[in-house]
Amino acid sequence: MRDLLFKKLEQSYDDMVEIRRHLHMNPEISFKEEKTAAYIADFYKQLGVDVRTGVGGNGVVAKVKGGKAGKTVALRADFDALPIQDQKDTPYASKVPGVMHACGHDGHTATLLQLAKAIHEMREELAGEYVFIHQHAEELAPGGAIAMIEDGCLDEVDVIFGTHLWSLFESGVIYYADGPIMAAPDRFHFTIQGAGGHGASPHQTKDSIVIGSQLVMNLQQIVSRRVDPIESAVLSVGSFISDNAYNVIADQAVIVGTVRTFTQELRDLMEQEIRRVAEGTAIANDCQIKVEYTRGYPAVVNHVKETIFLKSVAESIPDLAGVEEMKPQMGGEDFAYYLEKVPGTFFFTGAKPTDAYPHHHPRFDIDEKAMMAAAKTLGAAAIEYQK
Amino acid sequence: MRDLLFKKLEQSYDDMVEIRRHLHMNPEISFKEEKTAAYIADFYKQLGVDVRTGVGGNGVVAKVKGGKAGKTVALRADFDALPIQDQKDTPYASKVPGVMHACGHDGHTATLLQLAKAIHEMREELAGEYVFIHQHAEELAPGGAIAMIEDGCLDEVDVIFGTHLWSLFESGVIYYADGPIMAAPDRFHFTIQGAGGHGASPHQTKDSIVIGSQLVMNLQQIVSRRVDPIESAVLSVGSFISDNAYNVIADQAVIVGTVRTFTQELRDLMEQEIRRVAEGTAIANDCQIKVEYTRGYPAVVNHVKETIFLKSVAESIPDLAGVEEMKPQMGGEDFAYYLEKVPGTFFFTGAKPTDAYPHHHPRFDIDEKAMMAAAKTLGAAAIEYQK
Amino acid sequence: MRDLLFKKLEQSYDDMVEIRRHLHMNPEISFKEEKTAAYIADFYKQLGVDVRTGVGGNGVVAKVKGGKAGKTVALRADFDALPIQDQKDTPYASKVPGVMHACGHDGHTATLLQLAKAIHEMREELAGEYVFIHQHAEELAPGGAIAMIEDGCLDEVDVIFGTHLWSLFESGVIYYADGPIMAAPDRFHFTIQGAGGHGASPHQTKDSIVIGSQLVMNLQQIVSRRVDPIESAVLSVGSFISDNAYNVIADQAVIVGTVRTFTQELRDLMEQEIRRVAEGTAIANDCQIKVEYTRGYPAVVNHVKETIFLKSVAESIPDLAGVEEMKPQMGGEDFAYYLEKVPGTFFFTGAKPTDAYPHHHPRFDIDEKAMMAAAKTLGAAAIEYQK
Amino acid sequence: MRDLLFKKLEQSYDDMVEIRRHLHMNPEISFKEEKTAAYIADFYKQLGVDVRTGVGGNGVVAKVKGGKAGKTVALRADFDALPIQDQKDTPYASKVPGVMHACGHDGHTATLLQLAKAIHEMREELAGEYVFIHQHAEELAPGGAIAMIEDGCLDEVDVIFGTHLWSLFESGVIYYADGPIMAAPDRFHFTIQGAGGHGASPHQTKDSIVIGSQLVMNLQQIVSRRVDPIESAVLSVGSFISDNAYNVIADQAVIVGTVRTFTQELRDLMEQEIRRVAEGTAIANDCQIKVEYTRGYPAVVNHVKETIFLKSVAESIPDLAGVEEMKPQMGGEDFAYYLEKVPGTFFFTGAKPTDAYPHHHPRFDIDEKAMMAAAKTLGAAAIEYQK
Repeated sequence: MRDLLFKKLEQSYDDMVEIRRHLHMNPEISFKEEKTAAYIADFYKQLGVDVRTGVGGNGVVAKVKGGKAGKTVALRADFDALPIQDQKDTPYASKVPGVMHACGHDGHTATLLQLAKAIHEMREELAGEYVFIHQHAEELAPGGAIAMIEDGCLDEVDVIFGTHLWSLFESGVIYYADGPIMAAPDRFHFTIQGAGGHGASPHQTKDSIVIGSQLVMNLQQIVSRRVDPIESAVLSVGSFISDNAYNVIADQAVIVGTVRTFTQELRDLMEQEIRRVAEGTAIANDCQIKVEYTRGYPAVVNHVKETIFLKSVAESIPDLAGVEEMKPQMGGEDFAYYLEKVPGTFFFTGAKPTDAYPHHHPRFDIDEKAMMAAAKTLGAAAIEYQK
Repeated sequence: MRDLLFKKLEQSYDDMVEIRRHLHMNPEISFKEEKTAAYIADFYKQLGVDVRTGVGGNGVVAKVKGGKAGKTVALRADFDALPIQDQKDTPYASKVPGVMHACGHDGHTATLLQLAKAIHEMREELAGEYVFIHQHAEELAPGGAIAMIEDGCLDEVDVIFGTHLWSLFESGVIYYADGPIMAAPDRFHFTIQGAGGHGASPHQTKDSIVIGSQLVMNLQQIVSRRVDPIESAVLSVGSFISDNAYNVIADQAVIVGTVRTFTQELRDLMEQEIRRVAEGTAIANDCQIKVEYTRGYPAVVNHVKETIFLKSVAESIPDLAGVEEMKPQMGGEDFAYYLEKVPGTFFFTGAKPTDAYPHHHPRFDIDEKAMMAAAKTLGAAAIEYQK
Repeated sequence: MRDLLFKKLEQSYDDMVEIRRHLHMNPEISFKEEKTAAYIADFYKQLGVDVRTGVGGNGVVAKVKGGKAGKTVALRADFDALPIQDQKDTPYASKVPGVMHACGHDGHTATLLQLAKAIHEMREELAGEYVFIHQHAEELAPGGAIAMIEDGCLDEVDVIFGTHLWSLFESGVIYYADGPIMAAPDRFHFTIQGAGGHGASPHQTKDSIVIGSQLVMNLQQIVSRRVDPIESAVLSVGSFISDNAYNVIADQAVIVGTVRTFTQELRDLMEQEIRRVAEGTAIANDCQIKVEYTRGYPAVVNHVKETIFLKSVAESIPDLAGVEEMKPQMGGEDFAYYLEKVPGTFFFTGAKPTDAYPHHHPRFDIDEKAMMAAAKTLGAAAIEYQK
Repeated sequence: MRDLLFKKLEQSYDDMVEIRRHLHMNPEISFKEEKTAAYIADFYKQLGVDVRTGVGGNGVVAKVKGGKAGKTVALRADFDALPIQDQKDTPYASKVPGVMHACGHDGHTATLLQLAKAIHEMREELAGEYVFIHQHAEELAPGGAIAMIEDGCLDEVDVIFGTHLWSLFESGVIYYADGPIMAAPDRFHFTIQGAGGHGASPHQTKDSIVIGSQLVMNLQQIVSRRVDPIESAVLSVGSFISDNAYNVIADQAVIVGTVRTFTQELRDLMEQEIRRVAEGTAIANDCQIKVEYTRGYPAVVNHVKETIFLKSVAESIPDLAGVEEMKPQMGGEDFAYYLEKVPGTFFFTGAKPTDAYPHHHPRFDIDEKAMMAAAKTLGAAAIEYQK
């Protein structure tokens, strides 16, 4: 069965590349992906596959029923792009000024469409049902996943798999991790309201810059002292703005940053400690510090059984460049929401091109051949999960 | 003699107010005060007084020789305005958008012109010579004083007096101080060059915001630990700018501020310690911190003998609202340069109006009657210094 | 074979307890464990087992050769006690004032002696050779392991196993970890040499307490900013001493603490960053900071294959209370040195008594029945490693 | 009159030196000065002067009434020594182990006794009344002054003068200051109660050393930001003690230091800000910080009129080495209490010996000839204040 699937996938490779490049040239930013959604829906309609559009926004869900009874397996690909100006010198560079598929979602979509086509063609031989979740808006909180789930995309689904093509990992290698694989990315925003005045008269002011500096220093101790050293947490200040003349004392300072954690307990602890440090710093300086703490996606926490299954499936695919365990990444992904509802696993597919740039870089690209590794792994996992 | 002078001044009060209001409605910013300079020169020309224009820039110097031999006494008034939008509701509010006499230099000029007229009229009775220094560009470094001195305005001068009308001090009171009366205002500018990156990966970066915060904290110890507590020094950071997305680590941060001191030793110490703290902080964080330290005007240091003289002159003028010793101000003034060359003293004349705002405020104004207190004190000091 | 071993061990339980209690009542501190070493050696002599004393100090090594060819398996137990006053109310409390087996090494030794006896009795049936390493001085750097290895205790050894009874883990449960299981515990010692003086004259001094406080604050950023958040590292200051009159400024301050890491790269990074922060802080404050960084034991890094083997052996022993994966502990152990030389694994055996206290506590005790779980797991691993 | 007084003083110089050396060899610490008090009382009794002992403790007060009506002038000398081991190589070094006149109070006493004798001898010619206040316990809070005042030593006194011999100022020069001349020396004591634990587990603790370091850093901002730069204030931490093993996290830290100010407003501000910073730091760290703030003597604030008088008297004494204005000293003196009750002034008499050491140093000594300068100045001020 697997052999047939792989053969079909290999025959579809040129189409897969063509779809990817079409999407790459026509990117749409998060929550505005209307043409892309229509393109996906059309693909399924032409195949004669049952497809639902407008799922939780611009989401598209297609379903293929196998010839025999079995489990319902969901596969997910995201399809939104980023507000970045493409700077690549390739024939398939973005044609939309200031918008770019700089994270590989075009590849995810092309992979899933061709995989769906192959499964559709083989459906009589297969057990169970296959749900192809094409998700909009992964890049921008609150993300598309949560709305698609509310709109029923996971109804009756028994398991879900997804992957991310990764430009900095070896092409064709499958990277898995049991438990946490991507972090919960939160955002904090402090507004320090001191009392401004002339630089020569500090005693008549409350110096927002000194208070802010003290706050930044005190925040360091959350990671160094309050987090279990066996656990992972990051607290980074990204922005410190108090823009005034050289000879004044700042009335206000704004400090913004991010927190990354893998567990709910630690996430709660970080927020609690950040608020505590801000409160104490405000009291010590007799000023106001307003704290806004905005939670992003939860951590992506892979299920043990499904991860072990995926790993063994991948290890049995000889054409892969390798199968490796990876350390968790501190980045975020709204695939997290699916795994809160149903079992499953999210893995990385190495897609390093000759000239590799990090994700979100204006020269980002992938090795397109990695799509085949992703398609085979997702496909084998889907049809073999039935056993 | 003094009686005659005071009588003439009192008779000129309406003209004095008219001149002040004319200047107030027609302000010009530092180094651009061409019409104001012409206005001043015209005044002297109409009197038939010897006047030199273009002194060190837009400076104007007039001289009146007394009928007898004696000392050469200089009196100085500055005449530049500020780039501030006047927000007062008065008939004499500025007519120039975005430019305003928000520091009282219009009053200084009106005072000095009418005093010069009175002295000119009495010249036959007077000993010595009188030099009226109308200085441009006090508000903007390097200031007009230094260029006017280089251009000879102090040549043969034996002593100099000057005053500042002050909107926050009781109107009509003369405030003197022996020794330092205004500070040397310096400027520092740090560019912290760390190494930016993703907020989730601090170990691959050098966090410019944390380094900057550490620097601000360490700078506090210069005043708290390295300055003799009997001496006065201020070090204020006015600006901290590192403007980035919330989820990055800052590549660079720029920190700018001011130092105020009254002695050369302490000024040197402050610069030395600032450079030392920056160097150590850079080493501790393996980054670059570029330090620019720009010296502003020197401190205004009044001469003892001339201050005691001025004080006793003022105490003998019954119409003043009072004569008080004042504490030094941490602001700066390029009158400092004159006092480095010749003996003299700089004093404050209280000019608090009913509705008082600080200097440089968009609603700043003065009690115009204070001009009379200033004129009498300067005038009496000038003609009585001969004895 | 395993059945026979377990039967023998169960029959020996009363003797095992008796030995443990004898040692518990007669503790000896690290590098002074002469009577304990003699007691161990006597035990083997009475069995007729080949035993070598004085190995690398007070170490004792016994060897039992099986009846068939096979691998050489080493099992290690440490036997030193701690300079702590026993405060337990038990008949077997320490009889030596100020010295106590507060870490369970008495239990380790009793376990290994009875296991050795059982193996010795069964030797004809067994393949390979068994090396019983009784190590002195685990509690005090440089530890006994390194000297015993230099003195040949690992010669011809193919694999080594060891365990730690742990008073805070569930009794009878075996806890394993692949890779790092215990940290490398290093020590740092700063001497800050400022310049003392009167508390009223900070400008004539270099304030060692402010410098020390700044150093402590700056050190926090090593963990918060310079360590990969996926890795684990601890930097704790344990002691800050600058003991002076209230009205002076401190001439000197001494700051001492510990660093814990699991990898050599991170250990090197921590030392490098500590030295860098100290250097920068000294320069910023124009003072001397002497840094002594003393490396303790390396991290205990379990070998993958042997850990998987140990885990599967343990899972097949039905009388255990459980087999669980554990997170690494930040404490140190000189078992690390053995694992640098030969493959093997170190595991924890839960030994929580009814009234549990942490290790090194004056009321520390263990559930003695845990010794049986340890003996069976070590024994089964030893004889089954031959396969 | 003055000539007679000076002649008598000059004739008494050898006796003055003898008294000073007797006292120097027989020092007694604060509140234990019984023999010294008896010695002083005996001196007066032998002269036949009215003397009261046991005034507010060990204080001694003698009174001499002049032949004519006039003002009542008090002169004060303190007579306690310090718990310091004398290390001088002089015949008159202390004979009491561990106790030493290391602050010159022996010289103050010898000066005042001989001055009293001279005035007593001249009493018929003099107007007014002379009160000789020999004060115990200046070195140790709460000091002797406050109790002596409560016990009536200032009753009916119109004015008070006192001086301090100073080993670091030019011998024979009189140093005066209008307004504040010595600071109010307060003491603060923080007990930081965190939560101790193992150095490897910071997340289970509240790290008292990091909290203490943060507190020390935050305290720096009180002087750098909250004190008017024209004013003088010192905040110095003298002691930071948290003495533990290197591998623990500190349960507690004790931080002790001093504050020096010249005005009540600033003193109140310092205490308020110290408490505020401690409160905020405790909240930020979720721990307890106990603050004890103990006020020492008030600032010594000289009265203007009496200071000008003293200065002019001194300037008219030709045998002095000079009369100079001095900057305030940050040290404390309980002469402050007298000046809160009656007008007066406290001045310094330079007493620098060839080999000068600071006050409280084990090799401290004075140039004894300075006693004559002190005696003449005090004496002339006393008898001429009548005019």
